[in-house]
Amino acid sequence: MGPTATISQYLSSARYDDLPDSVIHEAKRSFLNWLGVAIGASRHETVEIALRVVGKIGGSPAASILGRADKTDICRAAFLNGTSSHIFDFDDTHLATIIHPTGPVAAAILALAETEGRSGREFLLALILGMEVECRIGNAVYPAHYDIGWHITGTAGIFGAATAASNLLGSDTKAIAQSIGLAATQASGLREMFGTMSKPFHVGRAAENGLLAALLAKEGFTSSETAIEAPRGFANVLSTAHDYDELTSGLGDRFEILKNTYKPYACGIVIHPSIDGCIQLRDRFALVPEEIEAVELQVNPYVLELTGKKEPRSGLEGKFSIFHSAAVALIDGAARVDQYTDERVADPRVIDLRRKVTAVPDKAIKEDAAQIAITLQSGERHHLKVAHAHGSLARPMSDEDLEEKFRSLVEPILSEEKVQRAIDVCWKLDSLPNMTSVIQESTVSRDS
Amino acid sequence: MGPTATISQYLSSARYDDLPDSVIHEAKRSFLNWLGVAIGASRHETVEIALRVVGKIGGSPAASILGRADKTDICRAAFLNGTSSHIFDFDDTHLATIIHPTGPVAAAILALAETEGRSGREFLLALILGMEVECRIGNAVYPAHYDIGWHITGTAGIFGAATAASNLLGSDTKAIAQSIGLAATQASGLREMFGTMSKPFHVGRAAENGLLAALLAKEGFTSSETAIEAPRGFANVLSTAHDYDELTSGLGDRFEILKNTYKPYACGIVIHPSIDGCIQLRDRFALVPEEIEAVELQVNPYVLELTGKKEPRSGLEGKFSIFHSAAVALIDGAARVDQYTDERVADPRVIDLRRKVTAVPDKAIKEDAAQIAITLQSGERHHLKVAHAHGSLARPMSDEDLEEKFRSLVEPILSEEKVQRAIDVCWKLDSLPNMTSVIQESTVSRDS
Repeated sequence: MGPTATISQYLSSARYDDLPDSVIHEAKRSFLNWLGVAIGASRHETVEIALRVVGKIGGSPAASILGRADKTDICRAAFLNGTSSHIFDFDDTHLATIIHPTGPVAAAILALAETEGRSGREFLLALILGMEVECRIGNAVYPAHYDIGWHITGTAGIFGAATAASNLLGSDTKAIAQSIGLAATQASGLREMFGTMSKPFHVGRAAENGLLAALLAKEGFTSSETAIEAPRGFANVLSTAHDYDELTSGLGDRFEILKNTYKPYACGIVIHPSIDGCIQLRDRFALVPEEIEAVELQVNPYVLELTGKKEPRSGLEGKFSIFHSAAVALIDGAARVDQYTDERVADPRVIDLRRKVTAVPDKAIKEDAAQIAITLQSGERHHLKVAHAHGSLARPMSDEDLEEKFRSLVEPILSEEKVQRAIDVCWKLDSLPNMTSVIQESTVSRDS
Repeated sequence: MGPTATISQYLSSARYDDLPDSVIHEAKRSFLNWLGVAIGASRHETVEIALRVVGKIGGSPAASILGRADKTDICRAAFLNGTSSHIFDFDDTHLATIIHPTGPVAAAILALAETEGRSGREFLLALILGMEVECRIGNAVYPAHYDIGWHITGTAGIFGAATAASNLLGSDTKAIAQSIGLAATQASGLREMFGTMSKPFHVGRAAENGLLAALLAKEGFTSSETAIEAPRGFANVLSTAHDYDELTSGLGDRFEILKNTYKPYACGIVIHPSIDGCIQLRDRFALVPEEIEAVELQVNPYVLELTGKKEPRSGLEGKFSIFHSAAVALIDGAARVDQYTDERVADPRVIDLRRKVTAVPDKAIKEDAAQIAITLQSGERHHLKVAHAHGSLARPMSDEDLEEKFRSLVEPILSEEKVQRAIDVCWKLDSLPNMTSVIQESTVSRDS
């Protein structure tokens, strides 16, 4: 049996009751974190433009848009919510593949669960299974696939969305395999788009297109039942190397969601160790930005490849600048949404400090590590070696950290009571008869 | 200036009045041929399933579905009409790239022209420009891109749809470039899907997603303005070789649409020389199928790669079988829609003859050529060398051939008067104040 068949078989037989408690708890954490970033970005220009276009196209107002009063059809709700959740680059990360796993999957099935009246447990099962497939697809082709230039959250994400939606629709093994085929043949998203609105667009489209794949497959639309491994299938066409064992070994025994991590900082994860170290040094030595002469970073080579923008011109570009990120970390002691606005990037104080930051790639330094050396004008020097950044698997964000992050994201959008109730329903997902209360606490009414 | 910028600049300055008459006439031929195949397949199971799903999702009934009484939103109308037009594998072919060029472009802009009230000339200009971009993208990356496993009508088609829609929307140079970026990052479609409903799905999705790209870019959604040539752009990620001269040289002077061809046979174009030759021998020597001992074909190597199915099990698979195609050509003297049904593929007489067909690849034989040798049980042998198949650039279908093909396709769907009026409006496209009459003659009323 090939990997596509093995996965399809597993998905059609997986049961909620067989899921370990740790996996269910991690799914709630993933969902809480995702809901926060999706609601938090729901008034961003990226969503405004997309919503304007969706409004012009027109659709049945069946599914809710997070953080807003608007509704649209389930596919476009999946698109908008998925897009919204990745705008701040503040969502979760499956470190082994740099996939942001919850977005494509949760956005696809939230719309479906809302309109089909599925329970919290059905939602959680679909979420866990979809994220499992998505991350395993990633494991099977990373890093070769990513190195070619594919945005893996888009290309692997659509498999997660398709399989989760198929699970929630109650599709049989054959329809699941067909939905994987329809996902494979729509897989897309170029890393060239990083730093533009089209990066979060990939997440939204992975959700929408994966959902469409599941809906079509359920009705008998045909594709291929060996779409992952076929000679002209996903792995061979979109990658130069693959390991199908990563897809199939230990299905149901080990869960990739347990390797999910959440960001304390609103930017690419590879910069986190440097930010973490800058904040630690700032707090420990009460550093004054104006007294800093030089900031020298030693980082994993990926850092400069992904976030090497010397002179960012917008908040969005700031997320792809290790230099801006180190500067705001030292000035503000934080790197949240407020540190990545157009204004903050153009602030003369920030610009001044950012130009004093240098970064040297070093293959010996792991992706969640960094070395920081700060020289003051006085000649004084401070060193710090960050072995594991805050938010990494070794130093995970606690449930309380996640709640606090959620609050900081959604407080500008939701009323105070809603914020707490939204947090509560996330922890109680496994006892909800349907997703109505989740939707209620994550949206606003027309007159608010 | 890079190729993306050059193309965007050309598109924003191109004028209808500068188009040669031959180009406008070829656009009408392309559209007539496309309309016929789209209407002809509009009751096929592929459309029925897709329409059922689109109905469940729900959308504003703004744009028409060809051959039917249904309406849906412009994006999904583009999807359904694009899909429909490629179901029979009977549409047009840009021989240099094996792209089926009209589908993605016409489907995208027909929906837009209908709802935005654009004139026939505006439609023709957008159609010609979109097909130009699509075929030039193909020229720039073919055959390397195709050989990797990409279905080039999907991957190049989305560029055609996006640029044509941008042109019809009156987008400026910057928005056109952004729409090309949004097209590049959605480019998808695997050759693995050949022989399934997902092959025409690629055409429909290229139309829909290209249209979405244009709508978003017009509203200011950002992507990349060097998405074709950037290090992680389309050409580098989805191909192993490229020639940007093919994209930019002679823009406005030479037109790829003049190299478009139309199929007299409802299957992959690489089989056409063999079918043509079989029909010629059948007619010339009044061959009786039961008296045939062996059919020996010498063909271009692509023929067996693309259409080498020995034992097709469905009408759809029959289109990918040189063996079935030769058999029906010899028995029926035709290879139209009726020759590629499930019943015809399962017919014992056809099966019997198909097993007597052998095909040998020969690199010396061009793609529009074939050699046929038929041995009868009597020992008699007949030879034919087809230098250029009917429907090739050297032996094109005449306007009358195209009208007759159109009639044979749409007569089961449209009333007799509508058929003639539909043909008439296609030839008069350049004088239509809007596309209402085209829509009227290409759809049916609710009670028909």
